[in-house]
Amino acid sequence: MADKKVYRASTTAPVNIAVVKYWGKRDPKLNLPTNSSLSVTLSQDDLRTLTTASCSAAFPPEDTLTLNGSPSDISGARTQACLRELRARRAALEAADPSLPKLSEMPLRLVSENNFPTAAGLASSAAGFAALVRAVADLYALAADPTELSLIARQGSGSACRSLFGGYVAWRMGGRADGLDSRAELVAPASHWPQMRALVLVVSAAKKGVSSTSGMQQTVATSGLFKQRVAEVVPANMDAMEAAVRDRDFARFAEVTMRESNSFHATCADTYPPIFYMNDVSRAAVRAVEAVNEKAGRTVAAYTFDAGPNAVIYYLEQDTEAVVGTFYDILGATTDGWKQEAKALPGKGVPLDEALAGVIKGGVSRVIMSGVGEGPAKTEEYLVQEDGSPVVR
Amino acid sequence: MADKKVYRASTTAPVNIAVVKYWGKRDPKLNLPTNSSLSVTLSQDDLRTLTTASCSAAFPPEDTLTLNGSPSDISGARTQACLRELRARRAALEAADPSLPKLSEMPLRLVSENNFPTAAGLASSAAGFAALVRAVADLYALAADPTELSLIARQGSGSACRSLFGGYVAWRMGGRADGLDSRAELVAPASHWPQMRALVLVVSAAKKGVSSTSGMQQTVATSGLFKQRVAEVVPANMDAMEAAVRDRDFARFAEVTMRESNSFHATCADTYPPIFYMNDVSRAAVRAVEAVNEKAGRTVAAYTFDAGPNAVIYYLEQDTEAVVGTFYDILGATTDGWKQEAKALPGKGVPLDEALAGVIKGGVSRVIMSGVGEGPAKTEEYLVQEDGSPVVR
Repeated sequence: MADKKVYRASTTAPVNIAVVKYWGKRDPKLNLPTNSSLSVTLSQDDLRTLTTASCSAAFPPEDTLTLNGSPSDISGARTQACLRELRARRAALEAADPSLPKLSEMPLRLVSENNFPTAAGLASSAAGFAALVRAVADLYALAADPTELSLIARQGSGSACRSLFGGYVAWRMGGRADGLDSRAELVAPASHWPQMRALVLVVSAAKKGVSSTSGMQQTVATSGLFKQRVAEVVPANMDAMEAAVRDRDFARFAEVTMRESNSFHATCADTYPPIFYMNDVSRAAVRAVEAVNEKAGRTVAAYTFDAGPNAVIYYLEQDTEAVVGTFYDILGATTDGWKQEAKALPGKGVPLDEALAGVIKGGVSRVIMSGVGEGPAKTEEYLVQEDGSPVVR
Repeated sequence: MADKKVYRASTTAPVNIAVVKYWGKRDPKLNLPTNSSLSVTLSQDDLRTLTTASCSAAFPPEDTLTLNGSPSDISGARTQACLRELRARRAALEAADPSLPKLSEMPLRLVSENNFPTAAGLASSAAGFAALVRAVADLYALAADPTELSLIARQGSGSACRSLFGGYVAWRMGGRADGLDSRAELVAPASHWPQMRALVLVVSAAKKGVSSTSGMQQTVATSGLFKQRVAEVVPANMDAMEAAVRDRDFARFAEVTMRESNSFHATCADTYPPIFYMNDVSRAAVRAVEAVNEKAGRTVAAYTFDAGPNAVIYYLEQDTEAVVGTFYDILGATTDGWKQEAKALPGKGVPLDEALAGVIKGGVSRVIMSGVGEGPAKTEEYLVQEDGSPVVR
């Protein structure tokens, strides 16, 4: 009689926030980018996806994915590409060693949960695909080299390849048509520069903007300035950013981070029709960061914005008072998400122009406090029970 | 006994709104630009500067300028450069013909008035310098070739050189170090395409942004994308715009106008620190124009933004219902500046998304309706009386 055993593996994976931005694909099917990018992996204590991958001959024949408690469609080409690649690698192992159970032939039951509100508008696809790929790779007992797995995760969501590492991570664009050299590499582990912190100001957008998937291709197709970003601006920023991380040079890290965010949003504005992700609240956050740095007399904070109005503000632990204090003074009474360390800081921040503070107070709905953290990790916390039934919470 | 006669000349000069933008100087002293530009001259019935230039041996020795009723400083290098150039040309005439009165040696009394509120935030320096140069040139009986005078006005304010012509005007950047080939030329007179209209949505800015004079040089110095705009984007847009005007092709005129505005504001956003002239109200105007074009099934309107949040919307007279009607439906009840033709249009516009309409209604303080018009013109309306005393109103 057939093997009714339920096989399981659970992994957590982190969110990453790029400081050199990914924007533009040279091959949309394989998610091959027009330029390399670099990101900071954020701590999973604050932001993580937990995914349990399970399979069993006893499961109904269709693969399934449950995301935050609801069934999720996995028929999409990107998810299918990831599962196909993972199954092929498992099948190769099984062919080489007939004693292995034929997991590659069993239906998959995937269950995934984020520990942060989707409403936060943080790209959860990176953590999601990284966790999915890593969990299935563990289930299948595949060689778990993150760079190798990044080739698979990249096909699910480009930025997901960077979430397979902790610390400071580069996605090398590569040059091959098959994408085998377009993968993530560790630039430096979190332990190299553990003082890096991130304060996320969650800005409520009037309505969802253009999706990054379609937005970036509109930019590639229509922006007259984009060529220059890809050919000269990003390569120079990659070099400068790797040097800044290597030397733990925050002033340099901050300038490149801010210039990169500006360059990215400039090419969005140069898209036809123009794409606007930042709003007046986002711009007020830019001015606030500039004011904090000016009052501090040195660079203590850096802003960056992804495909949405949220501000991510990088700073070093030792500058928490000036940076977090400033925003806590404005937002502490009206928004959630503050850690204990922030609640000890009233009055420690930089006094901001009243109109500026008003715009920020009126537009920020919550904050998230985090910092540089580790990559995906195996866990004994399962979202599928030993008998294969979902964990009910 | 000395000649106590008061010599006078009066001129009006128009505002112009660029559709290919001037942003960046290669020589800040001579106002030599990094790229050519092209503008539409707006009708002086709606927007004009009236300037009377007078001189007399009986005046106190210092040149004076009265602007909208208040004394204005003319010691600035730009104003001085214009007056020096004009006096030199007059002195040459006087040297060649000793019978001419020695106006070049007499103090100047200049009085200037705009027929539009400075609060409108429309760059009035272009009309101001064009009127000043043209009025003094008339006072001095200089050869009044506008292209020749544009070399002088350019030194007062770059865009002023384009206000010496009506209709559709190009400012050729030129290549000479002395700037003698950096001047305005007529692309087509207003009569070539008289149907061109402009609706200005005056947006109240929270506070004055970076001045264009300093802003454009910050962009030249810090934007990594600016090179590309100057080297490739603008030259292509100049060619396309001249063809669009020549062929009276509004769809093409509109696309180049909108792409140009986007490209210009993109390089501002790419400046470090970033320069933001457009705000959420400006962006709502962009979306409104896109909606009007989409509902019309063809391009009937084009937006452009200068160094501030005001939207200038170009359209053709025959599309007044769709374009003006749409904004009158939103703003007619709450803002001034509408002409009779607009007041006949309630309900004739395109229904806009409610949130979008709300942002526009909340942020537009007044409108100005105008259209393509003629260049500077001599007038018998004087702001200085025959006895040299200012006209009191």
